[in-house]
Amino acid sequence: MMKVTVVGMGLIGGSVARALNNKSFCVYGIDRDKNVIDFAVAHNIIKQCDNPIEQSDVVILCLYPEASLDFVKQNISKFKKDCIITDVVGIKTPLTDFFENGDYNLTYIGGHPMAGKEVSGFINSAETMFAGANFIITPTKGATEAQIGVVRSIAEAIGCATITITTAQNHDKIIAYTSQLPHVIATAMCDTPQLVKHKNFTGGSFEDVTRVAKINENLWCELFLGNKDNIIEEINRFSESLDKIKSAIISNDKQSLTDIMRNVRLVKEKIDNERY
Amino acid sequence: MMKVTVVGMGLIGGSVARALNNKSFCVYGIDRDKNVIDFAVAHNIIKQCDNPIEQSDVVILCLYPEASLDFVKQNISKFKKDCIITDVVGIKTPLTDFFENGDYNLTYIGGHPMAGKEVSGFINSAETMFAGANFIITPTKGATEAQIGVVRSIAEAIGCATITITTAQNHDKIIAYTSQLPHVIATAMCDTPQLVKHKNFTGGSFEDVTRVAKINENLWCELFLGNKDNIIEEINRFSESLDKIKSAIISNDKQSLTDIMRNVRLVKEKIDNERY
Repeated sequence: MMKVTVVGMGLIGGSVARALNNKSFCVYGIDRDKNVIDFAVAHNIIKQCDNPIEQSDVVILCLYPEASLDFVKQNISKFKKDCIITDVVGIKTPLTDFFENGDYNLTYIGGHPMAGKEVSGFINSAETMFAGANFIITPTKGATEAQIGVVRSIAEAIGCATITITTAQNHDKIIAYTSQLPHVIATAMCDTPQLVKHKNFTGGSFEDVTRVAKINENLWCELFLGNKDNIIEEINRFSESLDKIKSAIISNDKQSLTDIMRNVRLVKEKIDNERY
Repeated sequence: MMKVTVVGMGLIGGSVARALNNKSFCVYGIDRDKNVIDFAVAHNIIKQCDNPIEQSDVVILCLYPEASLDFVKQNISKFKKDCIITDVVGIKTPLTDFFENGDYNLTYIGGHPMAGKEVSGFINSAETMFAGANFIITPTKGATEAQIGVVRSIAEAIGCATITITTAQNHDKIIAYTSQLPHVIATAMCDTPQLVKHKNFTGGSFEDVTRVAKINENLWCELFLGNKDNIIEEINRFSESLDKIKSAIISNDKQSLTDIMRNVRLVKEKIDNERY
């Protein structure tokens, strides 16, 4: 049975541990909060182990981006030879660069389950967090098919439905659009005193567009600054579309305005129909 | 029993009729599609009536903004004396201006249930569409408390939870932020070829921010152009916040970036806690 350590038993790490539990993995956990480990052991979510890093075939980093890199650096001599290190971090180039520019007898294969919640902590973790979600795998150079298969089996075990393999660079470029931009937009949408004043004037569209404005500011600050060029490019692209719509409204250009919305609707309908 | 005619049995009108049915109202319906009326009568959602406008104490316009105004103009001599005309139209000044600048022995009291779906037509209507939703009432000058009470009773009967009374001008200013801006944002977010390419890289935040991009382009074109100054003001305010976030990212200003997100989160948490 493969031994797996989840490092950081928060919202995502806790959910990974819960979802891997009772599958064909022996799951250990590490957390700075001893109570979380005790609780998870007592509830059979993880197994007790005094030196999980040294024991594990796979280590899953479920920490913030900078903390993940720090943890690896501080524990670099402890990992088992040929250990597979993976993670759930929202940007993939920092860890990829670290491993591709060193020689540690370890294989880093990035992982990114595209799921989360607008709350944090082990207390909010759930076994079903990743059910049906997209999962992205970013192998470093030299990773074997067998090693990539191990990360794939973890993604499947936690319930992810669609697994895509790409480079760390491509991942970071794409998620700037699919994940970071929505968080920037929700924040900008709520960055106004009107938010409080008009809560009895909202409907479903407002609730949905602003849901992730209940943002973890420390995590997302790291994610944005760690993916600066990509997110700036996406904000600029979005601003151009916004300006295009604004110009059409200002000039009463019914045709352009309708065309923009129709084209968007047709593509969105196509995607949603393929998915659901 | 009060006689009510729903004009336009589409997504919203159909839902209003379904929700009013079996309450203390006698509900009639008008639709350009005779099949819809026949179906609704056959399923006891509305009652058969050959001249519903002439019979009704209340007429609820559930058409597009321009069509609502056209319907009123074309039928102005048919309404019963002292009939209350209300509607579900997303902008309130056009009908308000029409009625406040004429003398028709009719009372217009605007209504806006803040609910909908990213689909259209009677086929998608549902009795529970407005359950728990916000509802805004915009009485014209001279409307009595009793008449406003009738519209309130309709809002309650269809399931709305929070009912707010304000002016048409104030309504249009506020919903530019709470309803129109989210639709503009979702559209701009999806106005890129990336939408199709990266569908396996999306998570919940993307799904939520882009949900209403499956937009009814003809309806929303009318709504945006009919509320031009207000929506432009909101787009500009939003763009300023977006630029503020962009600048903080470009200059690596961790402090400002974290502060913006923390302030937004605290207010959003407060609102959500009060609501749910």
